[in-house]
Amino acid sequence: MTRQPPTFPSRGPTDHSVRDQIVEAAMQHFGHYGYEKTTVSDLAKAIGFSKAYIYKFFESKQAIGEMICASRLAMIMAVVDQAMAEASSPSDKLSRLFKALVQAGSELFFHDRKLYDIAAVAARDNWPSAAGHGERLHRLIEQILREGRETGEFEGHTPLDEASHAVFLVMRPYISPVQLQYNLETAATAAEQLPALILRSLAPR
Amino acid sequence: MTRQPPTFPSRGPTDHSVRDQIVEAAMQHFGHYGYEKTTVSDLAKAIGFSKAYIYKFFESKQAIGEMICASRLAMIMAVVDQAMAEASSPSDKLSRLFKALVQAGSELFFHDRKLYDIAAVAARDNWPSAAGHGERLHRLIEQILREGRETGEFEGHTPLDEASHAVFLVMRPYISPVQLQYNLETAATAAEQLPALILRSLAPR
Repeated sequence: MTRQPPTFPSRGPTDHSVRDQIVEAAMQHFGHYGYEKTTVSDLAKAIGFSKAYIYKFFESKQAIGEMICASRLAMIMAVVDQAMAEASSPSDKLSRLFKALVQAGSELFFHDRKLYDIAAVAARDNWPSAAGHGERLHRLIEQILREGRETGEFEGHTPLDEASHAVFLVMRPYISPVQLQYNLETAATAAEQLPALILRSLAPR
Repeated sequence: MTRQPPTFPSRGPTDHSVRDQIVEAAMQHFGHYGYEKTTVSDLAKAIGFSKAYIYKFFESKQAIGEMICASRLAMIMAVVDQAMAEASSPSDKLSRLFKALVQAGSELFFHDRKLYDIAAVAARDNWPSAAGHGERLHRLIEQILREGRETGEFEGHTPLDEASHAVFLVMRPYISPVQLQYNLETAATAAEQLPALILRSLAPR
């Protein structure tokens, strides 16, 4: 942020910065102790706020977790958007999409082990952020298939919604962090072989 | 078993029947309390054996768990073999294979919740029985693809090992019980759409 604060004097932290401060402390804490083991009392103690004060900004621990999860997923989507912008064709988009998801997801898993726990809880309990992430990727796949049908790169016999959903199902074990942990060992191979299989399934007859 | 026991008098249970008795008691116990929470002492108490006596037959709790896991996986493979015997063509085999795995796996999950826990631990810790199960299915897929190439039903351009492994990767989230639990909601749809996608990917050009 390069913008200056408003010129009238502030009597204390703005609501926005308090929220940021809580989220920042929560990230630190979850990163060390894990999401499931940290309580709102732990967070309150760490920041030096009362529990009641934190509850003025977030209605629950999950609400804080959701905030963190949403920002992580936004980071993954930024990597995906970048990959899409660099792709030369619908086929290339599908391959890059898969690789971007596997890579960004694996990094999240390896480099922020405990933050990954939040994503795992989010996927398990179907938090709105995680469900929305899956939904966005499903729509992106549909859009890529539509483009590929328009350019004649992909076959047009299979109903678009079935073809899109099937491709989404192939990718989902690599989209969902809770499943990705079981597929990390073969993730690099999968990122090569699965887009290739998908493209063979989309080839015009 | 309808065979009569040998006519010479037995002085006590045979080793074989003691093993069976331990496994049977373990199944009951794991079924009620879960695999991870049950100790060999708990089992010993339940059967009325000493812990040392159990260790004469099984070197660890995992060895008992392996026995149960292997028999469950054998049940799944029996369902798969039956499905293969009923299939009319390589394409039909792939569709039926996927459906058999999803159905047998879901039943194992829903009807024996705690026994499923064993399968989950087996998959997580890569027990030989679970690894062997995956390997057998991988080989079965390769064999079906080879047959389909011979009959001209499937394309022959993609290297057989790559095509087989890619199909195995698509199926794996439904083979591994630990991943299946996250895919149960869409398992019925997946059992329709994924074999169809796989068959499109195998169609001759």
